[in-house]
Amino acid sequence: MIKYYNVNGEIVPIEKAVINVKDLGFLRGYSVFDFFRIYKGQPVFIEDHLDRLENSSGKLGLSLPYSREAIIEKIIALAKVNELEFGGIKIILTGGYSLDGFLPTTPNFVMVASTLPTYPASYYTKGVKLMAYQYTRETPYTKTTNYLKPISLQKEIDEAEAFDVLYHDGEFISESARANFFIVNEAGTIITPDRDALRGITRKHVLGIANKHFNVEIRPVSLKEARAAKECFMTSSTKTVMPIRQVDFWRINKGIIGDTTKQIMALFKQHVEDYVTAAV
Amino acid sequence: MIKYYNVNGEIVPIEKAVINVKDLGFLRGYSVFDFFRIYKGQPVFIEDHLDRLENSSGKLGLSLPYSREAIIEKIIALAKVNELEFGGIKIILTGGYSLDGFLPTTPNFVMVASTLPTYPASYYTKGVKLMAYQYTRETPYTKTTNYLKPISLQKEIDEAEAFDVLYHDGEFISESARANFFIVNEAGTIITPDRDALRGITRKHVLGIANKHFNVEIRPVSLKEARAAKECFMTSSTKTVMPIRQVDFWRINKGIIGDTTKQIMALFKQHVEDYVTAAV
Repeated sequence: MIKYYNVNGEIVPIEKAVINVKDLGFLRGYSVFDFFRIYKGQPVFIEDHLDRLENSSGKLGLSLPYSREAIIEKIIALAKVNELEFGGIKIILTGGYSLDGFLPTTPNFVMVASTLPTYPASYYTKGVKLMAYQYTRETPYTKTTNYLKPISLQKEIDEAEAFDVLYHDGEFISESARANFFIVNEAGTIITPDRDALRGITRKHVLGIANKHFNVEIRPVSLKEARAAKECFMTSSTKTVMPIRQVDFWRINKGIIGDTTKQIMALFKQHVEDYVTAAV
Repeated sequence: MIKYYNVNGEIVPIEKAVINVKDLGFLRGYSVFDFFRIYKGQPVFIEDHLDRLENSSGKLGLSLPYSREAIIEKIIALAKVNELEFGGIKIILTGGYSLDGFLPTTPNFVMVASTLPTYPASYYTKGVKLMAYQYTRETPYTKTTNYLKPISLQKEIDEAEAFDVLYHDGEFISESARANFFIVNEAGTIITPDRDALRGITRKHVLGIANKHFNVEIRPVSLKEARAAKECFMTSSTKTVMPIRQVDFWRINKGIIGDTTKQIMALFKQHVEDYVTAAV
């Protein structure tokens, strides 16, 4: 049970985790974030997430108010006070309390702890369905808080009995709303798109693992190529490696999870275990 | 001096105008707003702004928690307690406190009072410069809080010694970041673009006024046509009617404000006076 957040460096009970409405994240959506997954009480791939948070902040001209070491300490402290063994800590950095409601000032730094969503086991044994949707995020390489589109689409996603969306530009696939997209083709090559896709940390580590065992290509993936793919899966910090069994009306591999996906799932799981063991 | 805001129906001192960080406007930018200009203590064109706020809220599947009459009362009450004769009241409606950090719940309703920005008199007597920029807003007809792009562009705007940006898609102009765009051509026709442009309330009233005195066209305006225009101006609730003397390196009418713009400025001013007098 999560009981505490952190606002501007101070651990506070959730009900006291407030910001003034003058905050530019609230008023103008001027805000970036990153999500630090906690596994066995340890933040996973923390340096990668810090790199990305620094990059996102820099893109908005915002400076993190603490050193990397201090942020790591704060993540571990917030996980500890919440007795969080498995979960995540989201760090949000906003444009701060704006004097004119438009121009950024000193950033506000907020940390929100959470347990992970509990997906049905079938999502990993049978795969999920995605709904193809033509849309390109405004700033795909910067992790901003702008999620208006996928939240607005939720009703449509539910009606399609899908788990999430798969964004494309009419010809090429970019990503899912909160996960990266991979295919495995007939030749057994693992391919993931690069353009307009978030620089996912799980994506990065999956590519690292995959490179040791398979042919890997980072290049545009058309809807047509994906439709002919042997296997599809997606990756994210909360979902790790999740198989995709269907997109709209096209089923992948007759709805059976392929061996390459299974192998990547097992290899990634071991990779996280190794990381956490080494970190202790 | 503004001292009070309103959070979920209660008037509170600014320093107590807080929301919990679980708010979906804060976490995910899932939020709409509208800005009610106060002139001589009265909200101007209030029914139009309420229509638009209802429309924006509906687009996000959010319901306003109060009746129109109750919202009008709250706007007038917040103006009064702040002794606000000239200024504005912004109403923000968010996706509420989200249980999973993604799906909307009961909206939060926030009212922020402010004085108007004080522009140098020269902005109205000599006009302003805009910086052309290729960009189309994701949801131009819904007034969401997503202003990441223009805030990120502020440094570039300052370096160009411009007042604001003028968005275009490479061929056609849509709008400025926080104002609608108009041209007056050689024949004296007033033209404003429609596609990807916010449904501005000042725009609507200027079109109503202009229709009585000039030829008016609502249709695409190319960069090429704007470059050849005799006059350019922009409209918004805070700026009212503001002449544009230059876009990038092209000067309009040799930098002299045209007679049609001057006439529209005077007619709009009188129109607001008439509205407020009738409202008392």
